[in-house]
Amino acid sequence: MYQITFKVRGENRLVLAEPGMSLLDVAQNAGITIDAPCGGTGSCGKCRVLLLEGCLESEKSRHITEDEYEDGWRLACTSFVSGDAVIAVPASATAYEDSLSSDFTAKGKDLGKYAELQKKLSEAGIGFKRTFKTLTAKLPQPSLDDTMPDNERLTRYMRDKFRTERVEIPFVVLRKLPEVLRENDFTVKCMVELTTDRLLVFDVMPPGSQAFPCGIAIDIGTTSVSALLIDMEKGKILTAASVANRQIRYGADVIHRIVESAKPGGREALRKAIVEETLNPMIRNMCEEVGVPTSAVCRLSVAANTTMNHLFAGVYADPIRMEPYIPAFFEINPVPAGLLGLDAHPSARVIITPNVGSYVGGDITAGVLATLMWNDPQMTLFIDLGTNGELVLGNSEFMMSCACSAGPAFEGGEIVCGMRAADGAIEEVKIDKDTMEPTIKVIGEEGIPVGICGSGLIDAISELYRCGIINSRGQFIRAGKRVKRDSEGKGIYMLVPKEKTATGRGIFIDEADIDNFIRAKAAVFSAIRTMLSALSLEVENIERVIVAGGIGSGINMENAVRIGMLPNIPLEKYSYIGNSSLSGSCMALISQQAYEQILSIGRSMTYLELSTTPGYMDEFVAACFIPHTDETLFEIGG
Amino acid sequence: MYQITFKVRGENRLVLAEPGMSLLDVAQNAGITIDAPCGGTGSCGKCRVLLLEGCLESEKSRHITEDEYEDGWRLACTSFVSGDAVIAVPASATAYEDSLSSDFTAKGKDLGKYAELQKKLSEAGIGFKRTFKTLTAKLPQPSLDDTMPDNERLTRYMRDKFRTERVEIPFVVLRKLPEVLRENDFTVKCMVELTTDRLLVFDVMPPGSQAFPCGIAIDIGTTSVSALLIDMEKGKILTAASVANRQIRYGADVIHRIVESAKPGGREALRKAIVEETLNPMIRNMCEEVGVPTSAVCRLSVAANTTMNHLFAGVYADPIRMEPYIPAFFEINPVPAGLLGLDAHPSARVIITPNVGSYVGGDITAGVLATLMWNDPQMTLFIDLGTNGELVLGNSEFMMSCACSAGPAFEGGEIVCGMRAADGAIEEVKIDKDTMEPTIKVIGEEGIPVGICGSGLIDAISELYRCGIINSRGQFIRAGKRVKRDSEGKGIYMLVPKEKTATGRGIFIDEADIDNFIRAKAAVFSAIRTMLSALSLEVENIERVIVAGGIGSGINMENAVRIGMLPNIPLEKYSYIGNSSLSGSCMALISQQAYEQILSIGRSMTYLELSTTPGYMDEFVAACFIPHTDETLFEIGG
Repeated sequence: MYQITFKVRGENRLVLAEPGMSLLDVAQNAGITIDAPCGGTGSCGKCRVLLLEGCLESEKSRHITEDEYEDGWRLACTSFVSGDAVIAVPASATAYEDSLSSDFTAKGKDLGKYAELQKKLSEAGIGFKRTFKTLTAKLPQPSLDDTMPDNERLTRYMRDKFRTERVEIPFVVLRKLPEVLRENDFTVKCMVELTTDRLLVFDVMPPGSQAFPCGIAIDIGTTSVSALLIDMEKGKILTAASVANRQIRYGADVIHRIVESAKPGGREALRKAIVEETLNPMIRNMCEEVGVPTSAVCRLSVAANTTMNHLFAGVYADPIRMEPYIPAFFEINPVPAGLLGLDAHPSARVIITPNVGSYVGGDITAGVLATLMWNDPQMTLFIDLGTNGELVLGNSEFMMSCACSAGPAFEGGEIVCGMRAADGAIEEVKIDKDTMEPTIKVIGEEGIPVGICGSGLIDAISELYRCGIINSRGQFIRAGKRVKRDSEGKGIYMLVPKEKTATGRGIFIDEADIDNFIRAKAAVFSAIRTMLSALSLEVENIERVIVAGGIGSGINMENAVRIGMLPNIPLEKYSYIGNSSLSGSCMALISQQAYEQILSIGRSMTYLELSTTPGYMDEFVAACFIPHTDETLFEIGG
Repeated sequence: MYQITFKVRGENRLVLAEPGMSLLDVAQNAGITIDAPCGGTGSCGKCRVLLLEGCLESEKSRHITEDEYEDGWRLACTSFVSGDAVIAVPASATAYEDSLSSDFTAKGKDLGKYAELQKKLSEAGIGFKRTFKTLTAKLPQPSLDDTMPDNERLTRYMRDKFRTERVEIPFVVLRKLPEVLRENDFTVKCMVELTTDRLLVFDVMPPGSQAFPCGIAIDIGTTSVSALLIDMEKGKILTAASVANRQIRYGADVIHRIVESAKPGGREALRKAIVEETLNPMIRNMCEEVGVPTSAVCRLSVAANTTMNHLFAGVYADPIRMEPYIPAFFEINPVPAGLLGLDAHPSARVIITPNVGSYVGGDITAGVLATLMWNDPQMTLFIDLGTNGELVLGNSEFMMSCACSAGPAFEGGEIVCGMRAADGAIEEVKIDKDTMEPTIKVIGEEGIPVGICGSGLIDAISELYRCGIINSRGQFIRAGKRVKRDSEGKGIYMLVPKEKTATGRGIFIDEADIDNFIRAKAAVFSAIRTMLSALSLEVENIERVIVAGGIGSGINMENAVRIGMLPNIPLEKYSYIGNSSLSGSCMALISQQAYEQILSIGRSMTYLELSTTPGYMDEFVAACFIPHTDETLFEIGG
């Protein structure tokens, strides 16, 4: 055993470690956070740490330059214990996870779009009848002349008040009823759900209780989890939250997660990571913020990709990743929160939006609801760019979906200086053709750059190409102050020198980044072409393109078209709608009809498995150029 | 701290005890069983132990004669630690609990009455359609051309096979589905419930599994718990069991139990005692006997008095015992077994038969179903004599119920030599008027008497009165070899001298026993009179009397009438139907219609609260003689 000392935020943590263990494992076992969105495979470069003393056995990495290596920089995931060592964990090694917690500050902001969406859905025939209510029930005190039991007494009261024949008092409520009634002289606050065919008493509380019926709409992404807390009585969004999916330590993508979940004890570990470590703390924080107990959460809605909703439900997911790619379910009946281990009222129904295929899940069916394309005769292309890319093409007549393995480049993954669209991310880039000098725009008030996000990357590569700095294969063909070559002769473009960054490390784009990005954009574009071809349609038939997902609102559609990521159609046909999965999840939460519409979307949508579709690989290879082997496809304005 | 050594079944158990602790508490804390059906109040006399060495501070008791006290006999509940001591715990001090486990050996025996009852219920319009089935489902293997998920694949199979639109696969089944399917090449054994409107997949198992759908009908009595395990597919009773209600250490009657349950932690302690210590071991034993896992138990039915069903469900019961005597519920919707903590399929519906009043519970509504009086124009009196006495008077037009606090005398409680109707109990007694010599009949093959049960007590007291040995106040008025006086001048009748008993102690009846018994029989008779009066009916209007309960099949109706316990009507109108509560519970388990009929019985039956009915106390006082102050009521044949 060797002694490893981690210096983290001014503290020293001494950990004993077996020789040969990876530094990342040593840290994670000791509860020390080090980012590893790629799951510790060396590909993302987010786990950079500094070897101060002692020794480590480290593999080479494109994320560490030779100079940096000399200075002691190492990737924690590909460095192995070979003696005592002292390791500094810089703030940048936790920035990826930290950033996730702060990038959704929706309180009072940006919530208007849900009201607008609700209005549009109403116009499309989706009802938004509020079914949850609170009321103070003053029951008559029992006496020798009125010896009706508590259960029947409350039932009688509700039946008379709401003129409904069927009153249900669930067992958990019955269990507390006698004491709550007597401690409050038979005057209690009740939380009820009233539908056309029955009244359900969700809870009985002291009359002074501040609790009111809440609902929580959730979008479980592979990387991050977003949620809205809604006052179900008044129909208002009270707060929002976004946190990192704590499953991230089991890998950045769904395949890694499935593999981990199939190991002994893995399924429960992954379930706990999302339910107990991610969702429950988030639910508790949101409830605390608005001043209600978690037992006031009486409905939840979860939109997630197929793998995420399987792992969330604790269902064996291994067959998803192996031919013939069979999930356990498309649709799943609402499950009581108690069975799922969620910190909410145990009888709260948890809606899980339906899947369409192994890689087109409930996030897409929920998202399609929010696009309204199911109610629109216009031919619409819906593209959700998150950790993966999913596409839906169709209109009110039909819809076809597919998934492309775009990888995490659009969220900054597998890009040396990549990051998500959070504070400090470069989201816009312009380059002067003559001087090759860039102009950048950074997210957040401080304006000091940390890294580059998906939209910034699209801009940068588009501009590099427009300025003739890189060729159609992504190779550097001009030289200058900003353009350098590394020791292996590969070109890099320095966006921000190290003196002007928040990390003390330059922000640059290298040929490997461009290569990764080209493959990601090619995956999206070839998927579009393959779907069009399967439906015997042309690009010209697309009347609307709706982009959603983690790529961020800063996406410049013109640049995205220029580099051959999106089809060359008039720019006014493009729009960005943000997190459509959360929007759809929210609508399903507050409207039974919206939920039923999502089920109907799931049932009617077809699924095209690209990996087994002839022609897809050819399309992909043809798209692995800027903009494409067939440049006529991308003559702007052409 | 003093050292107390218990000698139990040949073993020495050394326990440290604080001075002043009762010996019963010391033993119970150490896990040593000593009977205490009265809850340790000194009234039942079942906790007799022998002080061999050392000292104890003991209260006097009518259960210990002076000679016995000299010999070292003490009641454990009223003896307190005052120094080191060595205590022998004889077999008789555990006979009460031990006997409970062995008095229901229904295997293959006496089950015919259920078939007969089923036939009669069918004639009365109650359907017995079997809804549970097992089948082997051979699902098509998935392929790239058939990528339907597991959930939908099984749903499709069931939909096609049973031509039903609504197929439900509960979450617990979905969670195991992918693995079970793949481990068995998509050929699985399924347990389903098929009703008119839906098919529910209860379980999926390997095709070789021996499990089949089971149901368990339970009667939770205050003292003992009886159950039947039923093959729900074939509709056959496979085994039966009867065990002691492990709540007994919290008191013999419902009032003691409620008081204990209202103490801190008491409700959970009482719930655990019945669910985890009584029902779950019984369920496991029954399942093991028939060779099925407990997860094959897919429905349960529980009939119990109001207090017992509250404590079983973990519902606050304290208001039941205090004016105005309000239970938490009469009706309760079926509850999943998982929520109740029962060792069964977590989704198994547990039916709890409805209560009618604080002291007329689900055991009576279930019992009334079994009497068929709800479908009979004849005026019927139904009497259930268990640890308490409940009565129902009525016919197909109306039914009125009441409860009388008869106490445990009919089950041998509060009688010095009393015991339940188990092996060793004297169940019949005749006395020669001239010689005063008794003739007895003992339950069991061995024929060596241990004590006297309720039916034996009725006989004995009736015969003592007929022979002029006691007067109408229960005082001894003849002298002889069998009749003695104790040191205080109170008479006793020696039924069996100590040389001829199994315990080495004489079996006798003393004036205090007779006094207790007279009060018990007076409670029953005055309840009958009060109900008749409330309905403006006369004894002559009663066309049938049905007796049920723990008093045993040995009851001699003629003697019960002679002593003024039952009304003086022709003996051929009397019948005994055993444990009607279990019969009704069983019918509700196997027939939805029978369950609905019990609900209807509960809703239509009125409840007469005797304690607040004018005239009841006068009736009771008048009945506290043998047979009654008004002897004309009991002229046999008159």
